[in-house]
Amino acid sequence: MLKVPDHQVAGHQAGGGKLGPLVDDSGHFYKPLQSDERGSHEVAFYTAFSTDTRIPDQFRKFFPVFHGTKLLEASDGSGLYPHLALEDIVSGRTNPCILDAKIGARTWYPQAAEDYLQKCLKKDRETACLELGFRISGLQVYGNKLTGLWKPDRHVIQSSSVEDSKLALRKFISSNPSTDSDIKPDCSFASTVYGGPDGILAQLLVLKSWFEEQTFYHFYSCSVLMVYDKESILQGENRGAQIKLVDFAHVIDGRGVIDHNFLGGLCSLIKMITDIVTSSST
Amino acid sequence: MLKVPDHQVAGHQAGGGKLGPLVDDSGHFYKPLQSDERGSHEVAFYTAFSTDTRIPDQFRKFFPVFHGTKLLEASDGSGLYPHLALEDIVSGRTNPCILDAKIGARTWYPQAAEDYLQKCLKKDRETACLELGFRISGLQVYGNKLTGLWKPDRHVIQSSSVEDSKLALRKFISSNPSTDSDIKPDCSFASTVYGGPDGILAQLLVLKSWFEEQTFYHFYSCSVLMVYDKESILQGENRGAQIKLVDFAHVIDGRGVIDHNFLGGLCSLIKMITDIVTSSST
Repeated sequence: MLKVPDHQVAGHQAGGGKLGPLVDDSGHFYKPLQSDERGSHEVAFYTAFSTDTRIPDQFRKFFPVFHGTKLLEASDGSGLYPHLALEDIVSGRTNPCILDAKIGARTWYPQAAEDYLQKCLKKDRETACLELGFRISGLQVYGNKLTGLWKPDRHVIQSSSVEDSKLALRKFISSNPSTDSDIKPDCSFASTVYGGPDGILAQLLVLKSWFEEQTFYHFYSCSVLMVYDKESILQGENRGAQIKLVDFAHVIDGRGVIDHNFLGGLCSLIKMITDIVTSSST
Repeated sequence: MLKVPDHQVAGHQAGGGKLGPLVDDSGHFYKPLQSDERGSHEVAFYTAFSTDTRIPDQFRKFFPVFHGTKLLEASDGSGLYPHLALEDIVSGRTNPCILDAKIGARTWYPQAAEDYLQKCLKKDRETACLELGFRISGLQVYGNKLTGLWKPDRHVIQSSSVEDSKLALRKFISSNPSTDSDIKPDCSFASTVYGGPDGILAQLLVLKSWFEEQTFYHFYSCSVLMVYDKESILQGENRGAQIKLVDFAHVIDGRGVIDHNFLGGLCSLIKMITDIVTSSST
């Protein structure tokens, strides 16, 4: 049984007759191929990466498992359409909290055509991307049974300033997420979600160690997805916070150089999360 | 007694009636203020930085000591002109080997005016800067008494490809530096200059640890200068390889974010030097 995902914070979304991803109840996430070269580019990346023996398991785990491509009835009712069959990252989680951070101050690659470059550059300058080294593309945070999911408008989120982005990273691990600027995020899950030996910060540092080394791929316009399950934590049965990289329509060959654009942005995100963990533990 | 420096690999150079830096024999390097706002900007940076108590000594040592500004007879004969009085980094070294690497894929800051941005972007794209995360602005390597100093044309160096840049980093620590592409650099000083507990790599890693933390300054168009003294090494009296940051006409306030542009480029340089040390020690 295919259905529109309940929990998606960024990217094209199905529903209302639009083409978007679908999920099934066996833990698969089906992403329709983007119609231009981005679609074939992403298939090519997943195909190459999934059989690339140069990628150690401790880094491969940060990528969704790839199950090939499948022709499925498209969500827009247009008939059979090719989809990437991927691991559904939030499958089985109730009320997951999700944050999508697009990594890298630069979303275009050096060899990009002039008009594409200028289009991306304009957006990078309009958002906090250039200053921050990343931008938050979307998030949702579960408050409680009464308040439910807090999911700010993603156009507002995407045009966040540096300070707003720092605030969003605090709201993400708070029990009182809100758009109301008078409500100070309590950061009550900072130590359990960001901190700890298996927390998001520890995972980001492992990812960073790979980016300091690997010269195989450069990831432009790729996101780090952070996911955790607040209810499980509240019930003392933390299913574990998790990070995953997603969106590989703009991955290019690293040609023997590290991906300094991604690494720089990742370090910026790490620094901000470190500051939250530090200030919450004192 | 002021004179034109013997060893300068990048930047404006005195001589031939041009305005450029001067040195004296007490270890000072006098850099004429650039005539536009870059000059006052660099003075403002040195003034603020030299009294900035937030900078621990283990990182401050990577910056030239600042001795204020001085009115001196300009090298172009135009009369008294304001100069920055700085530590002369190569003072006392005979036949120093020097490499100037301008760090950061992006040489312009987010708030830059459109025409300045486009001018810089064009140059970043024409050089290996965008791909590498840094570009080599100049170098000189002392071969031996017979061959003397090898100092490739800096316009050639600045337009180096990724592979040429890697090669230049190898030539920098070789006993047989040459423009002749048939001569393979022997990397005979890799372990003594790049490697070791006080070598250039160890110093770059300390610098990196500061850039992972500090959110005070963003360094655009700033260089890491690497200096060592081959003759001392050959005579078994290694004076020590040294790195210094230079050129601060485009430093801006970090506004609470790390300098991910500089850090990314620095990590790329570190990776390349690590590869040279590793391949030379096996």
